Amino acid sequence: MEDNTRLKPYKKDFGYSYTLGVFPTLELINNKPDVISRIVLSTKSESNQGVAKILEFAKKSGIPALFDDKTLNRISPKENCFAAAVFEKYDCSLEVTANHLVLVNPADKGNLGTILRTATAFGIENIAIISPAADIYDPKVVRASMGALFHVNFCYFEKFEDYQKAFCGTNRNLIPFMLDGQPINKVAADLKDSDYSFSLIYGNESSGLPAEFLQIGTPARIMHSNNVDSLNLPMAVGIGLYTFTNFN
Amino acid sequence: MEDNTRLKPYKKDFGYSYTLGVFPTLELINNKPDVISRIVLSTKSESNQGVAKILEFAKKSGIPALFDDKTLNRISPKENCFAAAVFEKYDCSLEVTANHLVLVNPADKGNLGTILRTATAFGIENIAIISPAADIYDPKVVRASMGALFHVNFCYFEKFEDYQKAFCGTNRNLIPFMLDGQPINKVAADLKDSDYSFSLIYGNESSGLPAEFLQIGTPARIMHSNNVDSLNLPMAVGIGLYTFTNFN
Repeated sequence: MEDNTRLKPYKKDFGYSYTLGVFPTLELINNKPDVISRIVLSTKSESNQGVAKILEFAKKSGIPALFDDKTLNRISPKENCFAAAVFEKYDCSLEVTANHLVLVNPADKGNLGTILRTATAFGIENIAIISPAADIYDPKVVRASMGALFHVNFCYFEKFEDYQKAFCGTNRNLIPFMLDGQPINKVAADLKDSDYSFSLIYGNESSGLPAEFLQIGTPARIMHSNNVDSLNLPMAVGIGLYTFTNFN
Repeated sequence: MEDNTRLKPYKKDFGYSYTLGVFPTLELINNKPDVISRIVLSTKSESNQGVAKILEFAKKSGIPALFDDKTLNRISPKENCFAAAVFEKYDCSLEVTANHLVLVNPADKGNLGTILRTATAFGIENIAIISPAADIYDPKVVRASMGALFHVNFCYFEKFEDYQKAFCGTNRNLIPFMLDGQPINKVAADLKDSDYSFSLIYGNESSGLPAEFLQIGTPARIMHSNNVDSLNLPMAVGIGLYTFTNFN
């Protein structure tokens, strides 16, 4: 990309994406500065403190930063976007011995972003995603994650079996979240003395995990009243992460 | 409303609102059938099982139900809305001796709906809302709540003090969620033997609770890593509800 006039609304097949907003742009600068190729700012943002920090970074690092409302309006569906960074997509891989979060076919971009934010909050920073799934680089995901995307390692797999082959020897506790599982507090208490890492596994927003996951590891269930059908996916993930990590 | 041609996109000052979608419409039918004044259905929905149940209810109760795509498109911002009910707004009041959730200035409609769904899941069905706040009757709230709105008692108050005067004698444990609070597990353990009900109190999405809430009851805090600024509001509420109720 030689100039801003070439920047178009994000599409999945682009080799780059955008942080839309001051906060995710600062998180990108603080965590993955090397992948930033340019910065676009709103002329309305000149008195914004975050934008001052972004400009300081651009000056120090020699990355082009332009006040360009037209480009910003073109690439951001939301008004009131004060800053955007263009960044190259990057590869990352999961830590073999870390605790993992495994998302099977997550479909909603806002949910995926909220999950990344919450996983980072509870110190789970290795995330496996089983396709088909939302595109983690979509600016809506980046925005909903509040930039937590840049804190985590993530990896897409075509099938759950591929993840299993790569990471699940006998040394890992697999916890699929399912309606037929045991209460999570019991499962978490049983795991407390385990020397092995765990993988918390969640299904798709509308369909959950298929029945075959009952045969995998120790299925767990978040108990709730019968007055709702289910918790929403980010909430179920957040309560699972909270229960299985040491932050509670 | 004598016919569908009068139905317009929802505004806060209307005396009625809409459930947009089959699921929230069925929840309304199951929980507050008396407030329904009419039903609008999509011609694309004829083979939908939920719509069959809605039609059965309309037939039994004598409430008018019409297939009317034009009206549905006019009142629903989302495509693929198969059913809507028009319902009269109703008054409700909080149970004096129940556990309460208190939301101070919640601004986001989707968040408010998610919170209602999660509160219902964990059996907290009395919700105080301090103004200014999102309109709980907005169809976006109803939709995000998956119809849980119709399970809860809610009441708006102009100031927190008004809620306090009405409901907080010496017989209620007040738990404001704040960064300066004690870890919630400690607070929850200390409360376990209390004979009194509790009120979990949460601030606005961007500003949290003002400092004066430190003087009120026992401030509590959800511990998390420093790699995120905060949890999002529904997540913080969900983890608080999960920790303080008997579903965990």
